[in-house]
Amino acid sequence: MKRIAILGSTGSIGQNALAVVEAHADKLRVVGLAAGENADLLAEQIERHRPAVVSMASGEAIDKLRAAGVARAFQASVGRDGLIAVASHPDVDIVLCASSGTEALEAVIAAIEGRKTIALANKEVLVMAGGLVTEAAARHDVSILPVDSEHNAIHQCLHGQARGAVKRLVLTASGGPFRGRTAAELADVSAADALKHPTWRMGRKITIDSATLMNKGLEVIEAHWLFGVRADQIDVVIHPQSVVHSLVEFVDGSVLAQLGVTDMRLPIQYAFSYPERWTAPLPRLDLARAGRLDFDVPDTDAFPCLRLAYRALEAERSLPVVLNAANEVAVARFLEGRISFTSIPHVIEQTMSAHRAAEVRSLAAVRSVDEWAREFSRSVAGTVELNL
Amino acid sequence: MKRIAILGSTGSIGQNALAVVEAHADKLRVVGLAAGENADLLAEQIERHRPAVVSMASGEAIDKLRAAGVARAFQASVGRDGLIAVASHPDVDIVLCASSGTEALEAVIAAIEGRKTIALANKEVLVMAGGLVTEAAARHDVSILPVDSEHNAIHQCLHGQARGAVKRLVLTASGGPFRGRTAAELADVSAADALKHPTWRMGRKITIDSATLMNKGLEVIEAHWLFGVRADQIDVVIHPQSVVHSLVEFVDGSVLAQLGVTDMRLPIQYAFSYPERWTAPLPRLDLARAGRLDFDVPDTDAFPCLRLAYRALEAERSLPVVLNAANEVAVARFLEGRISFTSIPHVIEQTMSAHRAAEVRSLAAVRSVDEWAREFSRSVAGTVELNL
Repeated sequence: MKRIAILGSTGSIGQNALAVVEAHADKLRVVGLAAGENADLLAEQIERHRPAVVSMASGEAIDKLRAAGVARAFQASVGRDGLIAVASHPDVDIVLCASSGTEALEAVIAAIEGRKTIALANKEVLVMAGGLVTEAAARHDVSILPVDSEHNAIHQCLHGQARGAVKRLVLTASGGPFRGRTAAELADVSAADALKHPTWRMGRKITIDSATLMNKGLEVIEAHWLFGVRADQIDVVIHPQSVVHSLVEFVDGSVLAQLGVTDMRLPIQYAFSYPERWTAPLPRLDLARAGRLDFDVPDTDAFPCLRLAYRALEAERSLPVVLNAANEVAVARFLEGRISFTSIPHVIEQTMSAHRAAEVRSLAAVRSVDEWAREFSRSVAGTVELNL
Repeated sequence: MKRIAILGSTGSIGQNALAVVEAHADKLRVVGLAAGENADLLAEQIERHRPAVVSMASGEAIDKLRAAGVARAFQASVGRDGLIAVASHPDVDIVLCASSGTEALEAVIAAIEGRKTIALANKEVLVMAGGLVTEAAARHDVSILPVDSEHNAIHQCLHGQARGAVKRLVLTASGGPFRGRTAAELADVSAADALKHPTWRMGRKITIDSATLMNKGLEVIEAHWLFGVRADQIDVVIHPQSVVHSLVEFVDGSVLAQLGVTDMRLPIQYAFSYPERWTAPLPRLDLARAGRLDFDVPDTDAFPCLRLAYRALEAERSLPVVLNAANEVAVARFLEGRISFTSIPHVIEQTMSAHRAAEVRSLAAVRSVDEWAREFSRSVAGTVELNL
């Protein structure tokens, strides 16, 4: 029996994770759940899974949870401390980090120090603190199992292979809703257009990141930390059908790929079952029915965010933190209709250029760079605001 | 240093294997070479690789080899005994079985009994004597490493995976030069048409087998023996570009695939280097440049040989021997222009139907069924001979 804590249980990944737990009730049990503000859904999840420990973003959310009349007794806590309490509960074996943003950074470090296996579905943790997190994981001999479909695919391809046998990782990207458009054609696309992702159903922020290719850029940075490869060993290939989830090229010229239906339960279950594989009640991939798979190089002129992410990774140190923070600010402004789609990379690039890169040796240092970058990028965004 | 014997050194696979040996002279050394009648090429190979033991199909061929003025001293022998002498030489670690046909059956068994690793590039060994060979390999704790690109791909995908985790194997087939044609459109195709394989350069017999899909049928039978899966766990998918060499579906719905350029040095080197991977001087696969990969179901109405192979495998016992023998006779007749392309499955089906299936518990029993099937299929072929 593996005992699970889920940070972000009411989000898309969290809900899929609970479906996986229910499909394998003989092998998985929920010990802790942490959510943001969705008290109604968390109350349902508590009734169903009876966790020992629960956390929400705020005291008001917890009050709402109590008011929802959840009958079960559980410890409840709040905010970052709440996330830490859930992630480091002594009964937990695996912490699924599926909360968005940077709130869970301390909780992930606490889980690693408590020697929990980390199932990682949050990009910011490695983009912002990849060095700190992977150092801690190595020090405590803890595995980080990626849940993102691309990194999960690479983890599957690397299983049983010697590290020195790896030549190159190839991350696939659907290309998003604007694949094939030129920079000029992207100038006046709306948030509604950008939210129409062709193959995956995801949250708003990550869907915009898919449209700009920043999502892939953040994944390149994550892949660096997860698999210990250099930026020049990570390629991105556009693959609109999202059937091939990613590939690994070995020194002998052989390439392994992982393929599957686009259902997040698959990588979540893999992270929970690893090193075993468990029978899953999922539709199977029918290649003949898929019929055709396409591959193309990414257009970094039309989608400069991908190039910015490589630049941040090559510079290492604090620049990925700046990239991520400026991107969050720019995407929020775009979703509000306040800046154009093509202003997103502009805001990020301006902020990166203004930043003096420094080492980040603590989470406090990370948060300090993050705050500077958010403030600076807000002011850049102000200069390109649309007249509405 | 791994010490290699090659059965079939002057054939296409044998020559590629020697190229692999030359590229890894620090890790591989040739101890034995066996060839058919090509004394000139074997003489060159002897000069270059200085094997301790050599064998050819006939005494005349050996005489020709001596006459070619090979300076080196080596033991020479002839025929099946010669193959056995090369395969079971005490200095040999790995025997690459790349001779075509059934001549090497006894040599492979002898190599297994001598606890040599088998690198298998010959289809008939497993199609005709899969039970005997895999039982012997299990008894002597010997690995059989497949060199055929499809089975090699599956071996790569299975590495490090639990046997119980496998749901299904998917063999890819280029579809050959007649992909997409109906049975009626195949009635008057010539041997010259059939020899134009779109993606692989191979010998004449195997190229015709690719055009009829019998090659894939024989591979289905091989996959059964190599990987211990039932006929209903082996699927075939048409994939004209031959970039994906085969796939494995696991119980959790995940699919792993091996991809690469169509160069036999890749699977040969893998079989020699396994479980390591060695840097290879091969062109790398560029998926974006490949651009597009297609997949389709095979048309077993137009290409009934594939269906016949499944029927033989499901019946097991002696029927795969009959299938293989009748196919060899029919393909030879077709290459001679004596029967039509669509008569190939007819000859095989008639022979299979006339056969009373029996257990085959010895190589002698295998050879006896083989002889009966060759004789019977010759007579069937006589009844459909074309008027030239």
